[in-house]
Amino acid sequence: MNWNNLDTISAFAKLSELKGHVNLQEAMSGENGAERVAKYSVPMAGGLTYHYAAKQVDEEILDTLQALADETELTQKYEALYNGAVINTGEKRLVLHQLTRGQLGNAVIADGVDKRAFYVGEQKKAAEFAQKVHAGEITNENGEKFTTVVQIGIGGSDLGPRAMYIALENWAKATGNFKMEARFISNVDPDDAASVLKSIDCAHALFVLVSKSGTTLETLTNESFVKDALKNAGLDPSKHMVAVTSETSPLAKSADYLAAFFMDDYIGGRYSSTSCVGGAILSLAFGPEVFERFLNGAAKADKTAKNSDVRKNPAMLDALIGVYERNVQGYPATAVLPYSQALSRFPAHLQQLDMESNGKSVNRFGEPVKYVTGPVIFGEPGTNGQHSFYQLLHQGTDIVPLQFVGFKKNQTGMDVQIQGTSSQQKLCANVTAQIMAFACGKDDENPNKNFAGGRPSSIIIGDQLTPEALGALLSHFENKVMFQGFVWNLNSFDQEGVQLGKVLAKRVLAHETDGALRAFSDLLEI
Amino acid sequence: MNWNNLDTISAFAKLSELKGHVNLQEAMSGENGAERVAKYSVPMAGGLTYHYAAKQVDEEILDTLQALADETELTQKYEALYNGAVINTGEKRLVLHQLTRGQLGNAVIADGVDKRAFYVGEQKKAAEFAQKVHAGEITNENGEKFTTVVQIGIGGSDLGPRAMYIALENWAKATGNFKMEARFISNVDPDDAASVLKSIDCAHALFVLVSKSGTTLETLTNESFVKDALKNAGLDPSKHMVAVTSETSPLAKSADYLAAFFMDDYIGGRYSSTSCVGGAILSLAFGPEVFERFLNGAAKADKTAKNSDVRKNPAMLDALIGVYERNVQGYPATAVLPYSQALSRFPAHLQQLDMESNGKSVNRFGEPVKYVTGPVIFGEPGTNGQHSFYQLLHQGTDIVPLQFVGFKKNQTGMDVQIQGTSSQQKLCANVTAQIMAFACGKDDENPNKNFAGGRPSSIIIGDQLTPEALGALLSHFENKVMFQGFVWNLNSFDQEGVQLGKVLAKRVLAHETDGALRAFSDLLEI
Repeated sequence: MNWNNLDTISAFAKLSELKGHVNLQEAMSGENGAERVAKYSVPMAGGLTYHYAAKQVDEEILDTLQALADETELTQKYEALYNGAVINTGEKRLVLHQLTRGQLGNAVIADGVDKRAFYVGEQKKAAEFAQKVHAGEITNENGEKFTTVVQIGIGGSDLGPRAMYIALENWAKATGNFKMEARFISNVDPDDAASVLKSIDCAHALFVLVSKSGTTLETLTNESFVKDALKNAGLDPSKHMVAVTSETSPLAKSADYLAAFFMDDYIGGRYSSTSCVGGAILSLAFGPEVFERFLNGAAKADKTAKNSDVRKNPAMLDALIGVYERNVQGYPATAVLPYSQALSRFPAHLQQLDMESNGKSVNRFGEPVKYVTGPVIFGEPGTNGQHSFYQLLHQGTDIVPLQFVGFKKNQTGMDVQIQGTSSQQKLCANVTAQIMAFACGKDDENPNKNFAGGRPSSIIIGDQLTPEALGALLSHFENKVMFQGFVWNLNSFDQEGVQLGKVLAKRVLAHETDGALRAFSDLLEI
Repeated sequence: MNWNNLDTISAFAKLSELKGHVNLQEAMSGENGAERVAKYSVPMAGGLTYHYAAKQVDEEILDTLQALADETELTQKYEALYNGAVINTGEKRLVLHQLTRGQLGNAVIADGVDKRAFYVGEQKKAAEFAQKVHAGEITNENGEKFTTVVQIGIGGSDLGPRAMYIALENWAKATGNFKMEARFISNVDPDDAASVLKSIDCAHALFVLVSKSGTTLETLTNESFVKDALKNAGLDPSKHMVAVTSETSPLAKSADYLAAFFMDDYIGGRYSSTSCVGGAILSLAFGPEVFERFLNGAAKADKTAKNSDVRKNPAMLDALIGVYERNVQGYPATAVLPYSQALSRFPAHLQQLDMESNGKSVNRFGEPVKYVTGPVIFGEPGTNGQHSFYQLLHQGTDIVPLQFVGFKKNQTGMDVQIQGTSSQQKLCANVTAQIMAFACGKDDENPNKNFAGGRPSSIIIGDQLTPEALGALLSHFENKVMFQGFVWNLNSFDQEGVQLGKVLAKRVLAHETDGALRAFSDLLEI
């Protein structure tokens, strides 16, 4: 396999000549536009479809993206990844999160075990534990049922699981799948844990402590905070806590926990929502069957990502269009805009997924690259964002590509008709209107009311945000980020950029600093 | 007064020659760094201090920023604004949000009234209403006290008040100032209202409907949703609802509301947290005295912003450094990173404040500008962000300037000691460590572990996040955005970029569309 930098790829040289190639206003106007909408779509898993009519592409660009995919061997690299190659070169690790939801290729044997069997086994353990909690077989000291589950974790142990919980909470309540309320403690700010603990009934709460290494500062600190609170309430912490960690971590065999569920070094934090990191809390909150449906959606999307035809592989196509926008068109950021309040924290998860994976300046061999890599990712749900930062997106001096998400049906089934239409219809009308406003703009004799247009977007459309759709959505973006990492020749699976701050913070706390660091620390009275 | 474009300003030509002028690694290393920390700070209102030692400035740059401030007449323009000039040229309106918290200059008479007296009068009405609710003089139909207040609003009627409520919720609970739980309904997605209504006891809930025009689609739709729910529960909606609107709105004199509190066209949505838009809900949640303390913090910061010496005017200095970073250094985005879980939604508010104000491509006369204006703004609280997108901030190919916020004390007073330090100390140690990691970086023989440094940040440090500190923080950013708008010669107070989407959405709902817009709408079954 060739692991070459993007600026050595001949298809990229060709792509670079296609800067400003498509006039989006023209392309999307009139009946041409309707034809593009019909033509430029790809089915995804989970009943979703990826629509890219409002992206700056045409057949020539798509052919060049195909050539770029072929020349950078995206399909082969993905195959190597899921067959167990050491893709995480920096940390010399396999990358196996796809195995938590399906077997895409050969059995992967590592550390003497079949890794798919290991992940499935841990999921089964978590599922059985959740079922016993729901059945009242695992209870608090007084034999009473647990009613709330609280995840203690940070980064990938927080953002993904939290976003997934919020995404399915209303769906679960509406479909009779809701088992337990979930809450999350993440920040080392003591007010985070204090306010969560104040808002729940600790006597009926189960805490899921999530740290792969078992050494995460924030998580261990918050564990102590919670244990103190439980003890002060006359409760035995070990009867209220489970651990999700690696088998080699100090937490693994501790009597401090009712149970321990394991992941390993081959699943990065930001890719861990489909492992026990997401599985324990989601199985407790919604039942193991719902978590399995979520995994099935992700597994199907992972399969779709195997297709070497970019026009039939939405994750790969999305990735390549993103590279065109970033490295040829020169756009610095991407906004994620789900028209679904249930996806309110999904952009925060994607922000980690994307920016932590591809926010790198060296290639997978540690050599500096001479092109830009991962963009800034941000977003809020629509229509809220329309009344906030969309002003800049429409009329600002930088163009920001947009990723919309929309569903035909809402989750709760509750709605209201006003002026002949439902709220859900108003929501959907707004997202379609935005796509066209961004693409085509509008000339106005008052330049202040003029919209230049030419602002590209894509939209993922689904029937309803179900567990399958959510799994497919999650996998789509994971695979998109992976393909972009391949194109940029990065290692998307380490995060050395987070280390220096940790080292310096320890020195501050040990008072082993001088100069500006000590001066700032004195100001904060540390 | 001169209203000239930035590229005609001679001090800006001089500033442009200072690209890459300061070597931040050198400047912040060793004892130089400690001296910079002592030297480069400005007191703010509310017990806060603005520290800019880790920005790419030196005396020459500061002198040039002073010249830029003088030449663009920032102090005079601010003075014109608070004395009632028509600063919002597009909509031909005064800009008076500062008057909601203090009298900075002359009395402003408009529409035949003294505007300061008008805003104070409305605040007093809201305060008296809140006191009656707290005292049990205004109750539900059964004479029972209201326990929850729900704001129905979107954009500026949601993000600011919501961020301020979350910022003070724990402080209020810890200090005996907590009166009522607050919730927020914003999105037209029916699942937003449905889930909030499911989580509260409607019989004891008071709803605050906020729409200046009285015609906001989302807000009126959600009002209907709530009224239906109240009726279905056998309750009289008019006994559960107050309106915050303009005197000329259809909601103003309606019998549908227990009371109406007024703002006017001179207070933009994103600047309305200190008007009744924030005042009604915050007075109900925490009591009018707390809201007044919040206003006092903002009023003091507004006064500090009058100083024409940039070294003594933190909002002006922050604004000018931002212009240097955006227009000279060429950085496309800014991250807002509060080390305080209570400020979890403060970045979302600043995102609207900044991007909606200065995301413009034409100057205040409607002429296209030839330079970049407002950056993308995003952020999450620390330490959470450290485990997420900081990877890109440290090692990505684009430099993103950072705005940190930190406090010596937490709000709840609860904390835990581990390994000799409290959580609050760990939180503070992390933010100081980050400043230095970004500024100075670290050389490593493994290029993957190398940190280039040279990444600028500032930090606002306070004793504790109190109402005064929050008011000062809010005002600081409002005034920063205002000064940047002046420098860029923009009208920061309209938002024409949000109009086109609204018009097209109406057409979709009326089925008055064709081409791509109809095709997309059909896909979503509208």
